[in-house]
Amino acid sequence: MTSRTQLVASLEGLVPGASELDTDELRERHAYAAWSCLTEPGDAVAGAAIQALGAAGALDAARSGSAAPADETWVAGVRRWAPRWSGISDAFDRARTCGARLLTPADPEWPRHLDDLGVHAPRCLWVQGSPAALATGAAVALVGARAATGYGEHVAGELAAGVGGAGITVVSGGAYGIDGMAHRAALAGGGVTVAFVAGGVDRPYPAGHASLLARISEAGGAVAAEVPCGTSPTKWRFLQRNRLIAALSDATVVVEAGWRSGSLNTAGHAAALGRPLGAVPGPVTSAASAGCHRLLREYDARCVTTPDEVLELLGHEGADAEHPSDRTDDRTRLLDALSARSGRMTSDVARRAGFSEDEAQTLLGFAELDGLARRQGDRWLRGAETDRHA
Amino acid sequence: MTSRTQLVASLEGLVPGASELDTDELRERHAYAAWSCLTEPGDAVAGAAIQALGAAGALDAARSGSAAPADETWVAGVRRWAPRWSGISDAFDRARTCGARLLTPADPEWPRHLDDLGVHAPRCLWVQGSPAALATGAAVALVGARAATGYGEHVAGELAAGVGGAGITVVSGGAYGIDGMAHRAALAGGGVTVAFVAGGVDRPYPAGHASLLARISEAGGAVAAEVPCGTSPTKWRFLQRNRLIAALSDATVVVEAGWRSGSLNTAGHAAALGRPLGAVPGPVTSAASAGCHRLLREYDARCVTTPDEVLELLGHEGADAEHPSDRTDDRTRLLDALSARSGRMTSDVARRAGFSEDEAQTLLGFAELDGLARRQGDRWLRGAETDRHA
Repeated sequence: MTSRTQLVASLEGLVPGASELDTDELRERHAYAAWSCLTEPGDAVAGAAIQALGAAGALDAARSGSAAPADETWVAGVRRWAPRWSGISDAFDRARTCGARLLTPADPEWPRHLDDLGVHAPRCLWVQGSPAALATGAAVALVGARAATGYGEHVAGELAAGVGGAGITVVSGGAYGIDGMAHRAALAGGGVTVAFVAGGVDRPYPAGHASLLARISEAGGAVAAEVPCGTSPTKWRFLQRNRLIAALSDATVVVEAGWRSGSLNTAGHAAALGRPLGAVPGPVTSAASAGCHRLLREYDARCVTTPDEVLELLGHEGADAEHPSDRTDDRTRLLDALSARSGRMTSDVARRAGFSEDEAQTLLGFAELDGLARRQGDRWLRGAETDRHA
Repeated sequence: MTSRTQLVASLEGLVPGASELDTDELRERHAYAAWSCLTEPGDAVAGAAIQALGAAGALDAARSGSAAPADETWVAGVRRWAPRWSGISDAFDRARTCGARLLTPADPEWPRHLDDLGVHAPRCLWVQGSPAALATGAAVALVGARAATGYGEHVAGELAAGVGGAGITVVSGGAYGIDGMAHRAALAGGGVTVAFVAGGVDRPYPAGHASLLARISEAGGAVAAEVPCGTSPTKWRFLQRNRLIAALSDATVVVEAGWRSGSLNTAGHAAALGRPLGAVPGPVTSAASAGCHRLLREYDARCVTTPDEVLELLGHEGADAEHPSDRTDDRTRLLDALSARSGRMTSDVARRAGFSEDEAQTLLGFAELDGLARRQGDRWLRGAETDRHA
């Protein structure tokens, strides 16, 4: 058991107002952070133990080696985590040095969206910039291939500027290509943007994006990692990082992606979490769009072509979401006279709409052709297409 | 009542073996053709009367002015058709002159797909080339904007060549742009292609496609119209023609279309008929693809990028429809050990798959992240994503 003084010293600078928290609150925050040092992202054994015992309780159990959830999985976990105990305090020091903040599920500002990951939720986030950027308001992930084309970067820029300008947080992975353009355009439009990185936040990756990541932090956004400072980005950590992008965001849009792009992994997480998924189409002749078309075909992703359509994905109505109707006045009157539930005779429809029966029958025939009206015996109902034309 | 001799003379050259048909068979065929001369496409009043009385019976009723389906709609119809009686025999003569064949619902080779249009079904088809091209085998409509881009024409060519080469009839509208390229590429690939035209088959439209339309007829395909020879193409007839393209085809694919393109009308007919609908994506920056993206978004059209994906739309498996799996061996073993219906304990999954329980739990955790496995209490089931990865 660590003393209160030790806990306050350990969290100093990482958790604002640490000295005002009670001991249990300090212990819990410290334990979450310690768990992020002991485990690889997504460690379900640790996640299950934390769910059962709390972060501090599970940490005590792991430290004492007691087989709390007495099974061999736990024992293997304890063995797996053992080599990393000694690195915890170093990780805390590094975070302090680089000015990172610690955000844990015990904090009120913790982004609750991440809890949807269950036992795979991150233990904590190490954040540069503004932790509030992670928790407040609607967020959309704009992700895509590093090997983006000029077309893809152009569209990423348009979408990020539009979405960011509408007050939606733009979430991405800080990589070259689509990610970088999404961050940059969100910033340029005065929007808030969040970058989840695969290594420690003190290790800007890719190095060429060090200044971009710094600008994100300085402009009210956040650069966040679930792994502690000093950790290098590995393939595994990139893949796991993708689940954070998907989980934090209310919707994920893949702008450009090859057939096997890592962005499809992010999209898969979004789909698994039940979050809306969008994909930007491109030329079928472009390999850089093949992954997007795959999402449209295999994942029922929604086709997204404008910022307004991204907002629609979030359930926000875009500025020109209502396209000018191409119904004629006659057709409008006709459809107004139909019900979706109770069938009406042609004569009834004619009377309601103010048509001769002849006119009504003709209009009904054409409306039927367009799926706007349907027959039920000798009665007429609104058709399935009505909403699309409304 | 027309005499048998008159009927045989009237159908001479238009219906092979006319002289061997009995009088009722002749009357019915003649009446269908006469109806096509009297009515505009899609005349539901005539359609309903024909459904009720047969083509010849309805024609007699219309000629005698008897109010068979005694209502004002019918009376208005009789008045509407009156001015055209005198043109019937001229239309038959024109058809004979240009070598057209007459195909009616009374003929065994009548394409039954068209009957799905109900009272809006065409009365007959005037055909140049091979009527058999209309009735045999699977058909796909490849349609799109006249104002196509180089990209659109390229893709139309690829799809038509691939689909035509696979023995599927390519149906289109004979227009400039996408339609023309679809016909041409189908022909170049040795495939059969059908053009539905909006005016009479003796009036090639557009004039610049006269030789293309002639080649279609000569190469085992067909150029078909529901309006009689001598009829000019009007906007109404173009729109109605679109329903024939959609109804004859087992699936409709829009290759390139502006936001208000007429191709969307064809797509709407396909959707209303319950036929599969595909759309080829393109750059979101291209106005010529805006209609396709609209179909993807608003009509649940399927995203189509290759000829194989067109075949899939028809329910045919394409050559490379099975993409190389990206599952690892471990994952394969794990999924093999899961059932979609009965939940299994981790220990059971481990035993079945030949993993340690620890390994199984870890793999299950990752599989869960990817939506390949899901929990039910402490048991595991196959996840919803499994089929996509299988």
